[in-house]
Amino acid sequence: MRPSGRTPDQLRPVTIQRRFTKHAEGSVLVSFGDTQVIVTASVEASVPRFLKGQGQGWVTAEYGMLPRATGSRNQREAARGKQGGRTVEIGRLIGRSLRAAIDMKALGEHSITLDCDVIQADGGTRTASITGAYVALADAIQHMLDAKMIKQNPIKHAVAAVSVGVWNDTPVLDLDYAEDSTAETDLNVVMADNGGFIEIQGTAEGEPFQPKELTAMLDLASKGVAELCEIQKAVLNEEA
Amino acid sequence: MRPSGRTPDQLRPVTIQRRFTKHAEGSVLVSFGDTQVIVTASVEASVPRFLKGQGQGWVTAEYGMLPRATGSRNQREAARGKQGGRTVEIGRLIGRSLRAAIDMKALGEHSITLDCDVIQADGGTRTASITGAYVALADAIQHMLDAKMIKQNPIKHAVAAVSVGVWNDTPVLDLDYAEDSTAETDLNVVMADNGGFIEIQGTAEGEPFQPKELTAMLDLASKGVAELCEIQKAVLNEEA
Amino acid sequence: MRPSGRTPDQLRPVTIQRRFTKHAEGSVLVSFGDTQVIVTASVEASVPRFLKGQGQGWVTAEYGMLPRATGSRNQREAARGKQGGRTVEIGRLIGRSLRAAIDMKALGEHSITLDCDVIQADGGTRTASITGAYVALADAIQHMLDAKMIKQNPIKHAVAAVSVGVWNDTPVLDLDYAEDSTAETDLNVVMADNGGFIEIQGTAEGEPFQPKELTAMLDLASKGVAELCEIQKAVLNEEA
Amino acid sequence: MRPSGRTPDQLRPVTIQRRFTKHAEGSVLVSFGDTQVIVTASVEASVPRFLKGQGQGWVTAEYGMLPRATGSRNQREAARGKQGGRTVEIGRLIGRSLRAAIDMKALGEHSITLDCDVIQADGGTRTASITGAYVALADAIQHMLDAKMIKQNPIKHAVAAVSVGVWNDTPVLDLDYAEDSTAETDLNVVMADNGGFIEIQGTAEGEPFQPKELTAMLDLASKGVAELCEIQKAVLNEEA
Amino acid sequence: MRPSGRTPDQLRPVTIQRRFTKHAEGSVLVSFGDTQVIVTASVEASVPRFLKGQGQGWVTAEYGMLPRATGSRNQREAARGKQGGRTVEIGRLIGRSLRAAIDMKALGEHSITLDCDVIQADGGTRTASITGAYVALADAIQHMLDAKMIKQNPIKHAVAAVSVGVWNDTPVLDLDYAEDSTAETDLNVVMADNGGFIEIQGTAEGEPFQPKELTAMLDLASKGVAELCEIQKAVLNEEA
Amino acid sequence: MRPSGRTPDQLRPVTIQRRFTKHAEGSVLVSFGDTQVIVTASVEASVPRFLKGQGQGWVTAEYGMLPRATGSRNQREAARGKQGGRTVEIGRLIGRSLRAAIDMKALGEHSITLDCDVIQADGGTRTASITGAYVALADAIQHMLDAKMIKQNPIKHAVAAVSVGVWNDTPVLDLDYAEDSTAETDLNVVMADNGGFIEIQGTAEGEPFQPKELTAMLDLASKGVAELCEIQKAVLNEEA
Repeated sequence: MRPSGRTPDQLRPVTIQRRFTKHAEGSVLVSFGDTQVIVTASVEASVPRFLKGQGQGWVTAEYGMLPRATGSRNQREAARGKQGGRTVEIGRLIGRSLRAAIDMKALGEHSITLDCDVIQADGGTRTASITGAYVALADAIQHMLDAKMIKQNPIKHAVAAVSVGVWNDTPVLDLDYAEDSTAETDLNVVMADNGGFIEIQGTAEGEPFQPKELTAMLDLASKGVAELCEIQKAVLNEEA
Repeated sequence: MRPSGRTPDQLRPVTIQRRFTKHAEGSVLVSFGDTQVIVTASVEASVPRFLKGQGQGWVTAEYGMLPRATGSRNQREAARGKQGGRTVEIGRLIGRSLRAAIDMKALGEHSITLDCDVIQADGGTRTASITGAYVALADAIQHMLDAKMIKQNPIKHAVAAVSVGVWNDTPVLDLDYAEDSTAETDLNVVMADNGGFIEIQGTAEGEPFQPKELTAMLDLASKGVAELCEIQKAVLNEEA
Repeated sequence: MRPSGRTPDQLRPVTIQRRFTKHAEGSVLVSFGDTQVIVTASVEASVPRFLKGQGQGWVTAEYGMLPRATGSRNQREAARGKQGGRTVEIGRLIGRSLRAAIDMKALGEHSITLDCDVIQADGGTRTASITGAYVALADAIQHMLDAKMIKQNPIKHAVAAVSVGVWNDTPVLDLDYAEDSTAETDLNVVMADNGGFIEIQGTAEGEPFQPKELTAMLDLASKGVAELCEIQKAVLNEEA
Repeated sequence: MRPSGRTPDQLRPVTIQRRFTKHAEGSVLVSFGDTQVIVTASVEASVPRFLKGQGQGWVTAEYGMLPRATGSRNQREAARGKQGGRTVEIGRLIGRSLRAAIDMKALGEHSITLDCDVIQADGGTRTASITGAYVALADAIQHMLDAKMIKQNPIKHAVAAVSVGVWNDTPVLDLDYAEDSTAETDLNVVMADNGGFIEIQGTAEGEPFQPKELTAMLDLASKGVAELCEIQKAVLNEEA
Repeated sequence: MRPSGRTPDQLRPVTIQRRFTKHAEGSVLVSFGDTQVIVTASVEASVPRFLKGQGQGWVTAEYGMLPRATGSRNQREAARGKQGGRTVEIGRLIGRSLRAAIDMKALGEHSITLDCDVIQADGGTRTASITGAYVALADAIQHMLDAKMIKQNPIKHAVAAVSVGVWNDTPVLDLDYAEDSTAETDLNVVMADNGGFIEIQGTAEGEPFQPKELTAMLDLASKGVAELCEIQKAVLNEEA
Repeated sequence: MRPSGRTPDQLRPVTIQRRFTKHAEGSVLVSFGDTQVIVTASVEASVPRFLKGQGQGWVTAEYGMLPRATGSRNQREAARGKQGGRTVEIGRLIGRSLRAAIDMKALGEHSITLDCDVIQADGGTRTASITGAYVALADAIQHMLDAKMIKQNPIKHAVAAVSVGVWNDTPVLDLDYAEDSTAETDLNVVMADNGGFIEIQGTAEGEPFQPKELTAMLDLASKGVAELCEIQKAVLNEEA
């Protein structure tokens, strides 16, 4: 029995609230249970220097946590004068994951920045960020189409992410903090809605895990991402 | 006529939602119209080095903005590697304002950090932060009393803040962004609920302002803070 | 009786020595009693990026203290790798205050930087800085007129500043360190020579202060600034 | 045909030169073809603050590249004042991978830092670093045993790593730079010598990859790591 | 003929004004012609960590320039967030030079920090700093003796410094900016008053210099330092 | 008798291995006994901003140490976020020394960066760096000639460096760590192969040194540099 009473293959309640703040071209509040992340998508009509003049766009991401998103307060990274390693690593993962969703040529010389700020953490902040970021990105793309900044939709496929792990010798889906902090293995899986893998990051916290466990975890992840993609689709189909 | 249709002495709709996040000892979402700030109060059983062994506590504050809280995206301060001057200045103002509310001896050797993170900006972020921070602070103090960390309530009086300014030759209360960006004079007033001043910060954006204008603005501010203190009181009287 | 033997409405001896260093377009050593600040005004034929091409100029300021300007040594900010919050806050105050003196259109696309470096601190370093900076600025403007960089004098009015406070239950003018460190209320007032307010920054160190005290302090400040403006005028009328 | 003429399941020539520098407790020069990394293992009789007094040790890693390890010069990170995101991400991966090899209780209150400095880069710097770091770590552990700093060997199993990818529609082992820069999919696999997985990090550079491709890549990785573990074992069996 | 009209072996007018600021244990304004440096000596009853418990003291130095000490304004190092290479290099030179004057055992577990801040630069700022720093140091030592912090005088010998160079094919003493910026060779010489060398730093700006030129320059330096030591002695003999 | 058994005027075994890494235009591994430094020379077809459009080139250098190049581990400077003072000072010395070898007009608008990274330290890292850097620089220049980036060879003369010191009352050549850490005087001498001095940096660690000692040390240095220039010449004459 999982601490939350969920079955091994059960996601936490997932909600994605669109248009959460008014300034950004796309903006959501995404919740995976008690994990809550604000994601905004900001469009700029320029690209980073290394892409200038190549007729293509760019998607990037940054990740942050409010100091008291967690059980005890973390020092504010802006005050410390640098981002921690974990922050940098997660920001890069989110950026790569969302770049995979976009045809950069079709995006033209525009940049979209996805800012993922965790306001409450309870495990799975990176997978919630990616799942929510896709919706914010889709809204920002629609804004660009409406504003005639681009002519065709550059989205290749939806992207969602979930964590899976081995907890108490059982493969489980979407670990919350109580599970995450004691899991034997922790795997974050980013997938397209066509069932292909975009990113896999797995770590054995205790003993190395065996290929059979990996297969079981990847099956769970596929199931979970499929459900998340349905939620994304339903949310994006709502009236604006 | 003000851009928002308000009368000169009218506050924007103000709401303060308590227990907004689950980890902090005190936590609110405060809205002054479209300006929205998450404030958390974090309690620690220690004091900064310069106060060690003096049998007294400390209250401090930090301020931040999500990168897309504003009309165009600002670079993330953690990524830039330093806090901007405006950020530092506002954080210090909030800290001084809330320290004025507390009897540091009665707080004992505890620290309370108020983190004010603007998720949507539309003028008056520092006054919304201070007004919300008082509620988060009061909840954190109640938590400490309940947990028997302290024996007596160290709160001396409530604290709230509002901006006043001269806009279009008229003194007006609680400027929103449309007014703030074109105001001739901008004054932030922090007061106790007993009508005393805690902080006054006024800047003539255009011509120097005259003593008569100052008096008119301070009268408006007194009225506005009195209303804000009523809202704080009502919110704190709600069932937990 | 004040520690220095002054009457409540008495300034410390104030001197402003022009042409204190040879390289800067304007340069003074300003003393308010034992508080001594070197202020230089540096002219550049360019403006910050956010003003490019708008046909107007800019005035900015930076503040610093030599490490042993105070009773015990402070770590050098350049060695620590960042400016402290107080430094940033004061630099911004000085910049806003002096910008109020200048018609930016008449200044054309030029920048003037006011560097205020405290070599000896005894209370009131920010007000001494502002008062001295006006003289350095006026000299730099005269240099620009002489060099035909600008055609008309962009100075709108003189600017001076003084602190007032409530010390030992009495409103007093121009607090020195002995008073400042024990004052109940501390108010920095920046005014134009026409009697208008440019900046007011007041903090209740102990109990909130009442409107009546504020009025008494502002009256003292008006008297003090009027005397400082006379001193500025006399100094600027001296033979070059 | 691969650019290097290798078969799809063929590693580059791999060498690990022990005792490469004289000061460190363990030190190797590891080469995967033209990729060359100096790895040192440094032992300290203390642990990071978060582990103090818990009777266990710690293993951590840092990664760096000489500025001209690559085809064009990269700015020195020490001169830029911060480590890049890629550097941080790889350092954390190496640390996690080697921690998996060690029983922290058996290590006692000692820290071992693995410094991996790339002197020549040609693809696979992180997998070469991990594979070499295990040998440096084993030598440092032997040093500690010889010096009676610890009583029992805390090594649980050997650790090695290799990259696999899909290049030109074919799964290939141990990508060099020519392949890496054009691969469709890139997967870094860290394994124990018992065939268990420690870390899996895979990224679809172009299209999402399918479960079947993943299986093929993991099979190749298992074969490659087995060969690398043989090389480690042979090197460690050489006369000191 | 030198630009200043001096003979090749002639120092600029040198003045050292003691007790220039009131807080520091030693403090001078030293002028070598138009080069002016404020030097303070700050005493602390502690030593850096690497010297703790060894029964000896430490002398260190830091160097800085006000932003407009030079012909055009330099960005403030505290605002840039780091000290430039030249600043660091000169600070280290001053520190080594003054450490040579002191018997660290006799100083006991005390630290003295020499802060050298250039307020006006015209060549030779490092040699003026060292020459002035010795006087500030001597005053700080006298303060420690008077306060019974130490029992015996730890000064081993006086220290002074001067630059010499080859300008216009002629060896010259104490280069000012006009000479320094066009000199073929530039040599900074720090000596004890017993005629021994403490530091020699010479750079060929154009062609390498020959041993014969070196000898001529060192002779000039010896003459110059002897004069500087006389000036130091005269200043230190003045009534307090 | 020196700790190493060398005679006072005897260099350590010196080797310079060309083409040590494959990417850089020039690259060596230089050893002075157990001191080992990798030096790369990187050519870029641009110059720093302050030289733009002046038809001349630039040579600069950076210095670093692997964290475990020394007996105990030093924190990685990139991780600390800044270069230490010693690092900066040595990098500047190397840059000045190699700039003296080059006719900047003949180099055209090209920059060459010399990266000196110490992989094992045993005294004399800066002199080994300079001596090796000349060979890397010569190879990079040859590369530029071969690639027709420049028409004539801009090298004016070879440059080499050696340390000399007074150890155990005897002047000795090329101090190793055992001597360096206990030497009374330490002098680093950079010379051209024509016998002229480029840089002299001497420090009295204990008592000031006398002119006679300086002369003896400079004679030793001349002998040592002459031998080093022979080694450079022999290495550069080897078949490519």
